[in-house]
Amino acid sequence: MSELLSKKLKVALIQITAGSDKQANLSHAKEFILKALEKDSSIDLVILPECFNSPYSVTEFSKYAEKIPDGESTQFLSKLAKDQKILIVGGSIPELGDDGKIYNTSITFNRQGEIIGKHRKVHLFDIDIPNGITFKESITLTGGDKATTIELPEFGNIGEGICYDIRFPELATVAAREKNAFAMVYPGAFNTVTGPLHWHLLARSRAIDNQIFVVLVSPSRNLNLGYHAYGHSLIVDPNGNIIAEAGEDEEIVIAELDPELLKKTRAGIPITTQRRFDIYGDYTKKVEPRAI
Amino acid sequence: MSELLSKKLKVALIQITAGSDKQANLSHAKEFILKALEKDSSIDLVILPECFNSPYSVTEFSKYAEKIPDGESTQFLSKLAKDQKILIVGGSIPELGDDGKIYNTSITFNRQGEIIGKHRKVHLFDIDIPNGITFKESITLTGGDKATTIELPEFGNIGEGICYDIRFPELATVAAREKNAFAMVYPGAFNTVTGPLHWHLLARSRAIDNQIFVVLVSPSRNLNLGYHAYGHSLIVDPNGNIIAEAGEDEEIVIAELDPELLKKTRAGIPITTQRRFDIYGDYTKKVEPRAI
Repeated sequence: MSELLSKKLKVALIQITAGSDKQANLSHAKEFILKALEKDSSIDLVILPECFNSPYSVTEFSKYAEKIPDGESTQFLSKLAKDQKILIVGGSIPELGDDGKIYNTSITFNRQGEIIGKHRKVHLFDIDIPNGITFKESITLTGGDKATTIELPEFGNIGEGICYDIRFPELATVAAREKNAFAMVYPGAFNTVTGPLHWHLLARSRAIDNQIFVVLVSPSRNLNLGYHAYGHSLIVDPNGNIIAEAGEDEEIVIAELDPELLKKTRAGIPITTQRRFDIYGDYTKKVEPRAI
Repeated sequence: MSELLSKKLKVALIQITAGSDKQANLSHAKEFILKALEKDSSIDLVILPECFNSPYSVTEFSKYAEKIPDGESTQFLSKLAKDQKILIVGGSIPELGDDGKIYNTSITFNRQGEIIGKHRKVHLFDIDIPNGITFKESITLTGGDKATTIELPEFGNIGEGICYDIRFPELATVAAREKNAFAMVYPGAFNTVTGPLHWHLLARSRAIDNQIFVVLVSPSRNLNLGYHAYGHSLIVDPNGNIIAEAGEDEEIVIAELDPELLKKTRAGIPITTQRRFDIYGDYTKKVEPRAI
């Protein structure tokens, strides 16, 4: 097996909540990132939650939306990555596209503060659980049009999805199987209905089906806000074990992704070499989707 | 949504262990099936575990292998299905193919005792977990060459896999997405290493990714045998909840699969209509596998 992950990667998950003041949200994110680096100066990669710079609300997205890369949040994260010489997966922010549409978008930076990845949430969160939760992102948001893999310098490739994207296994499979990603990263704000039902299960599923690390980063839970995020940011190893997990409040979770775990898992249960594409085909090898 | 499952289906999972005497194993299966029907005469479908008629051992498969449909185990189950007017998924048995090769094969019968489905385990169980378990089915077995969907008269379609097949999500996805299966059924003998790690997780994963029922039927655990099965036969609903589960000993689990749960789950979190095949394609729509 080629080296998916070339060396140990120290990652910090920043579980925080955004309020209505965008500047304050950016400062709050910075404060927590610096706190994480104080705790452990060897952190390579910091990951923020979905919608870390604005309230998670369909009626508010347009108000907070900004251009990428010119908007203030992108510039802010770029400077922070450069100043601290860290990799940052910038959770997500409402993006105002050049087409005038609004996207739920994650931007990733290298240690020089340059953008090395951008994922627009592909699957919009439109659900309606009676006596549970109803939410319809598509009222104001537009879905992205590509699966995203990002090359993290020094380490290897990660795939990315945002929140509801995790319910669609294909994004993880494309990243892992076609792009040799060692991890999937999902900034995501499940809620107090869908969180207890499926948050851990989905993370662990994507991990064992692809034998990769899976990282979920949630906002913390704040019952004063309109949307109650689940919290429980976590990291799952390639064997499906949760190696670190937050509670529900604001919290920093730090863990190390070890390439040995990828090797050991894949050597023990070698599904990555046992697939029977002669029977069910391999959609990840096809660039053009088939007509349906 | 079309009716995947046309009415409630009462299913019985027969968690039993096979010894070295094939005739005794068949009688034992019959005894438990009759016991289940005594408990609940409205049972429609009975499912036996993997290798219910012989020891689970690579060195024994050839000794116990028999032809289908002429072999004694097929005839035995056929008569039982007909006499009791029930549907039977015959766990699995070592099959001697017309090509002289040995397969791990499951046969399904209608209420008239006719064969309505046959699945040859596709993915052979070849694993090597240091200090855990090493097993290599491919020493004596050959893998099947197709994904299997079976039409259950009166009810609808089920997909089938055997044990290790569950680690490969494609079989469930093909059955659910292309063939409108309402359930995946996996007779399977996980062990005391892989069982605690992944048994529940895999069953629940296949259920929520496809929003179908998933039924796993294991042999009971017998520490006097060479292979220690995990037990814990279970049924998962389309929302990922375990609705019935056995312990480790010989046991009958009875539950009802309710079409309302399929509808409710798919209406609440409508992933079956939100997939983005424009981005990642849909391998289940292709009859001929692509060249790889």
